[in-house]
Amino acid sequence: MRWPDKDVLYTVIFGTETPAGRRFDIALIVTILLSIVVLLLDSIGSVRAQYGTVIYGVEWAFTLAFTIEYGVRIYCSQNRLAYVRSFYGIIDLLAVMPTYLAIFIPGASFLMIIRLLRVLRIFRILKLIRYVNEANVLLRSLNQSRRKILVFFSSLFILVTLFGSLLYVVEGPENGFTSIPVSIYWAIVTITTVGFGDITPQTPLGQAIAAVTMLMGYAIIAVPTGILSAELGREMWREYEHRHCPQCDKGGHDRDANYCKYCGGEMEPPQE
Amino acid sequence: MRWPDKDVLYTVIFGTETPAGRRFDIALIVTILLSIVVLLLDSIGSVRAQYGTVIYGVEWAFTLAFTIEYGVRIYCSQNRLAYVRSFYGIIDLLAVMPTYLAIFIPGASFLMIIRLLRVLRIFRILKLIRYVNEANVLLRSLNQSRRKILVFFSSLFILVTLFGSLLYVVEGPENGFTSIPVSIYWAIVTITTVGFGDITPQTPLGQAIAAVTMLMGYAIIAVPTGILSAELGREMWREYEHRHCPQCDKGGHDRDANYCKYCGGEMEPPQE
Amino acid sequence: MRWPDKDVLYTVIFGTETPAGRRFDIALIVTILLSIVVLLLDSIGSVRAQYGTVIYGVEWAFTLAFTIEYGVRIYCSQNRLAYVRSFYGIIDLLAVMPTYLAIFIPGASFLMIIRLLRVLRIFRILKLIRYVNEANVLLRSLNQSRRKILVFFSSLFILVTLFGSLLYVVEGPENGFTSIPVSIYWAIVTITTVGFGDITPQTPLGQAIAAVTMLMGYAIIAVPTGILSAELGREMWREYEHRHCPQCDKGGHDRDANYCKYCGGEMEPPQE
Amino acid sequence: MRWPDKDVLYTVIFGTETPAGRRFDIALIVTILLSIVVLLLDSIGSVRAQYGTVIYGVEWAFTLAFTIEYGVRIYCSQNRLAYVRSFYGIIDLLAVMPTYLAIFIPGASFLMIIRLLRVLRIFRILKLIRYVNEANVLLRSLNQSRRKILVFFSSLFILVTLFGSLLYVVEGPENGFTSIPVSIYWAIVTITTVGFGDITPQTPLGQAIAAVTMLMGYAIIAVPTGILSAELGREMWREYEHRHCPQCDKGGHDRDANYCKYCGGEMEPPQE
Repeated sequence: MRWPDKDVLYTVIFGTETPAGRRFDIALIVTILLSIVVLLLDSIGSVRAQYGTVIYGVEWAFTLAFTIEYGVRIYCSQNRLAYVRSFYGIIDLLAVMPTYLAIFIPGASFLMIIRLLRVLRIFRILKLIRYVNEANVLLRSLNQSRRKILVFFSSLFILVTLFGSLLYVVEGPENGFTSIPVSIYWAIVTITTVGFGDITPQTPLGQAIAAVTMLMGYAIIAVPTGILSAELGREMWREYEHRHCPQCDKGGHDRDANYCKYCGGEMEPPQE
Repeated sequence: MRWPDKDVLYTVIFGTETPAGRRFDIALIVTILLSIVVLLLDSIGSVRAQYGTVIYGVEWAFTLAFTIEYGVRIYCSQNRLAYVRSFYGIIDLLAVMPTYLAIFIPGASFLMIIRLLRVLRIFRILKLIRYVNEANVLLRSLNQSRRKILVFFSSLFILVTLFGSLLYVVEGPENGFTSIPVSIYWAIVTITTVGFGDITPQTPLGQAIAAVTMLMGYAIIAVPTGILSAELGREMWREYEHRHCPQCDKGGHDRDANYCKYCGGEMEPPQE
Repeated sequence: MRWPDKDVLYTVIFGTETPAGRRFDIALIVTILLSIVVLLLDSIGSVRAQYGTVIYGVEWAFTLAFTIEYGVRIYCSQNRLAYVRSFYGIIDLLAVMPTYLAIFIPGASFLMIIRLLRVLRIFRILKLIRYVNEANVLLRSLNQSRRKILVFFSSLFILVTLFGSLLYVVEGPENGFTSIPVSIYWAIVTITTVGFGDITPQTPLGQAIAAVTMLMGYAIIAVPTGILSAELGREMWREYEHRHCPQCDKGGHDRDANYCKYCGGEMEPPQE
Repeated sequence: MRWPDKDVLYTVIFGTETPAGRRFDIALIVTILLSIVVLLLDSIGSVRAQYGTVIYGVEWAFTLAFTIEYGVRIYCSQNRLAYVRSFYGIIDLLAVMPTYLAIFIPGASFLMIIRLLRVLRIFRILKLIRYVNEANVLLRSLNQSRRKILVFFSSLFILVTLFGSLLYVVEGPENGFTSIPVSIYWAIVTITTVGFGDITPQTPLGQAIAAVTMLMGYAIIAVPTGILSAELGREMWREYEHRHCPQCDKGGHDRDANYCKYCGGEMEPPQE
């Protein structure tokens, strides 16, 4: 058996157009999901106690498989450095590294770090992003309303700082508001309407301020929703990507456009 | 008294156009709701202790009534196998089966299973779906945004896996995060802003990551809402665009318009 | 001093156009809010212990004032029975009755009922609805989407019944799910993302089903929001009430309408 | 070194157009954020115990810096009284005053007030508002729907008063609903879907009313969201309508359009 051609490998591993490429992708998704299931099982004390050795072996099998995949991806890339530095290249490396590092950094006192490293492998799940094309529509809408969302989060940050500080003063350490950072944490829990209930105001004034925080959180959720609704509605009215100018090939034209808004060239009528 | 004609029975039981058909439907809805109320009462310990025998009898009366209904539905269907295999056919069977199965699978050790079977009868409630025509508008909008919603839930799934794992590492079993699956459960409780409070982060780093989880959950709720708002707005616009003036051929007339708003010409009544 | 004219009284008490009418309305709002503050204070144990007699007197003063107001409203109405039977007539009666009933139904064993009657006086707050004209825009939008919202709540009702029953079976009374009604209560607490945390699933399967419930609740909140956003957007595009047909005087015309959609009469151009 | 010119100082401190003005603004933002971090650290007991003296010194350094900034702002303003009375003038004063007041109002019994004064310095964060220009778009939309939002909050206020009172009657002090104000606090916690769980209904009737409260809160969140979505959509449509073609005079052009989409004529660049 001779080595497969680099270009053939590339179309199979990186491409999704050929039947072989699709089969490879489906196999990879299944493998990623299985390896994550193994990680989840490994974290359950009783399962680990009974099947620890099996899980250890399976874990290494997955790591080796992903290492080989990483190697082959580097091998068959036209621009190897570009792949290694790309978002997916870093994710692919992060998905295998922890298991290897766990060998070189052993010892009782490093247990915490090792546990962290082992769990970092859960970043394998991010490898799935590659397959979600539909996400782009949403990401574009989010990108359009980027600045408005930033303003929203800045306001939220200011609000939780102010309300958190107020409750720290009013309630004080004896009611669980032990410091301003903890009080800000409480304000976030409250303004996002999560409401764990581990820290709750006990004094009438504290409860009144808490009520204002909740009502504010309940109302301002409307802001990001309104922004995104408006943006998505506009995006959909346009069917953004569909119409392209025959001259300059730019997209993003309205349904009723007769001429290209960028170069002034005549547009073809939209097909329904 | 001779047997009613199969076709007459069919129009009464399956149809909703004739007065008799409507009366049958209303009687069936009332019966279903009553049988569910009996199930709810049966599950309350004190009620069961006092009225157990009465409930047992009533329960059997309902089961017999639904069995007869199921039999008649099969009897008067043109294509019997099609009905039995249909969504409603299966629901109708699931609504009566548990009571019968409870006779054949008795015994102390099977109590748990019997309880489950008994409660399965609550699926009778699904029989009500048949009557909710308006649901179709919503279902069509949901279907249109199917892919975007799938992407949203995939992203949510990835986010809760990552945040759950992070908190498992940071907080660890001593603060209630006993395994990654439990931590993912916590992340779902937090990102959906439910916040039971049975598991809460105790360390400053854990609380900081939890705050990020909450803010993320608080913000991304905007995504499905935005998608559906845009889709429903479009759906309503489409309905609006549907009517055209016979004189000037312009569209965009309201449902209640008798005259064209552009040329004053008479409009045809809208077809439903 | 002679008695004021019935019609003059009517314009002052029921009308809001004259300066005297507006002054009366503002005085009434302030009185209602003050009487509610007194009720709130009365319910606080420590306040009642110290100022019980004062509150009792003030309470009777308010009740007498509202009784006189109710009497005068009946006296100066053109159609007295219509007022008594109207929504506001019933509210006005409910606002004074409890204090009087508390005299006739005394006794130790009736304490609970009396407390209920006393608190019913809080319905005085509903008298404020009279002054909120802007509410009509919202109510009309809600009315337009009436059927869709009904379908939404029916689906929610079916979902909480199914999920509640499932958790009753899976978790059982030993984990707090003591009956199906209690489990349905838990499902409502969870699907609306309130999450008190007084009842929480303990078994892995229960937590998995709970996670599905939460995600469902998190996603379907989009449905009523989407419905209302779309409806309000349409409503606002129209500026519904502003343009009226000079012939038939009907409202609800689009901005670009040249002819009345109801009678075909020519419309005046909209003023900006 | 001679004193800098008043006008030069003004452009640097109040303006954002010159490079020096931008550098000053960035330095100020960093200083504000640092001073807030110090306040947060100061509130953590363990940090204060160890680094109390350092924090005290740093705190005074920040206060002196902000005092000098306040003085220079007054000095170089054309209309000094206008600045002192302006929103930012008051914020700037509030940001420095607490540290000075802490000297003049010492003593054991005033500790609580001092703590409050110290924390008031957190209002420094509001100085950041100056830099958030994008907020205006959102504020304008919020302002447009001011009246509708007021109606929404009034309705919410009435609802929580009614539901709170009902639960006070049904559950009573023995289940934590110790007074009507506390019950209203509970109703706010519930209707905003926060759900701390520190007070929960225990009786079946109380749980049923609580379920109605939750469902209502879950549904009416749609109202502010719908209002804002519609308003923002309109705002964005208006911006879109704003540009008109100089040739054919038709409106509705995108911000990035160079040519008219209807006639192909060249467009003028949009004015910001």
